[in-house]
Amino acid sequence: MQFDSEISGHHVILDAKAESGGSDSGVRPKELLLTALAGCTGMDVVSILRKMRHEPEHFNIIVDAELTDEHPKHYTSMHITYEFGGKDLDMEKLTKAVEMSQEKYCGVSYMFRQIMELTFDIKILDKY
Amino acid sequence: MQFDSEISGHHVILDAKAESGGSDSGVRPKELLLTALAGCTGMDVVSILRKMRHEPEHFNIIVDAELTDEHPKHYTSMHITYEFGGKDLDMEKLTKAVEMSQEKYCGVSYMFRQIMELTFDIKILDKY
Repeated sequence: MQFDSEISGHHVILDAKAESGGSDSGVRPKELLLTALAGCTGMDVVSILRKMRHEPEHFNIIVDAELTDEHPKHYTSMHITYEFGGKDLDMEKLTKAVEMSQEKYCGVSYMFRQIMELTFDIKILDKY
Repeated sequence: MQFDSEISGHHVILDAKAESGGSDSGVRPKELLLTALAGCTGMDVVSILRKMRHEPEHFNIIVDAELTDEHPKHYTSMHITYEFGGKDLDMEKLTKAVEMSQEKYCGVSYMFRQIMELTFDIKILDKY
């Protein structure tokens, strides 16, 4: 069940869990959709905040998703939590950057929104 | 632009290309959609062929995709090429396994087919 995936010169190892006949030597393919979503919108947000000269010290993205029990197992919803940390962070600017990504730039969000419920919230952390 | 993504205990490094402000230290997030598709259907096919006692010596999957030029940049089509190699391979069994994945099991194919054109072809290679 192990696959070596080459993508733009980089390698990602895929594998199934033991109960699915794999050896857990790499990521599950379907879960990469969550990584793709987080990375796509995350890079947008960094890029927009950089232009606003409002870069946070800390930036973490968590994606929670609901998967069906029945085949073909597919996601019915995803929720993105954007966590920022740093001095003098302005929630209005952070929200503006996230909204610009969600509404205009992030192609993965655009695609996923057509086939599932896609929501988000934004947090400024005291400790990080 | 570099993100360290943790997913079921495994790490995937994401990064943008230099022209997008990154340093190409990892994969582009959107391209992970192609990896997710290949891995999802690939594991199905291996699993089905294993049950058929018809495992190939060589199995490679290539995914080609069309991306829009305009924001939000999204895929409008993907084509999967399944390449098999080995002794006494039976195209009928290989096709059956691929069709079962595409029509019944692969959740990534199921999701993507709702938002883009998804096609495939199957090749048996003489040399691999």
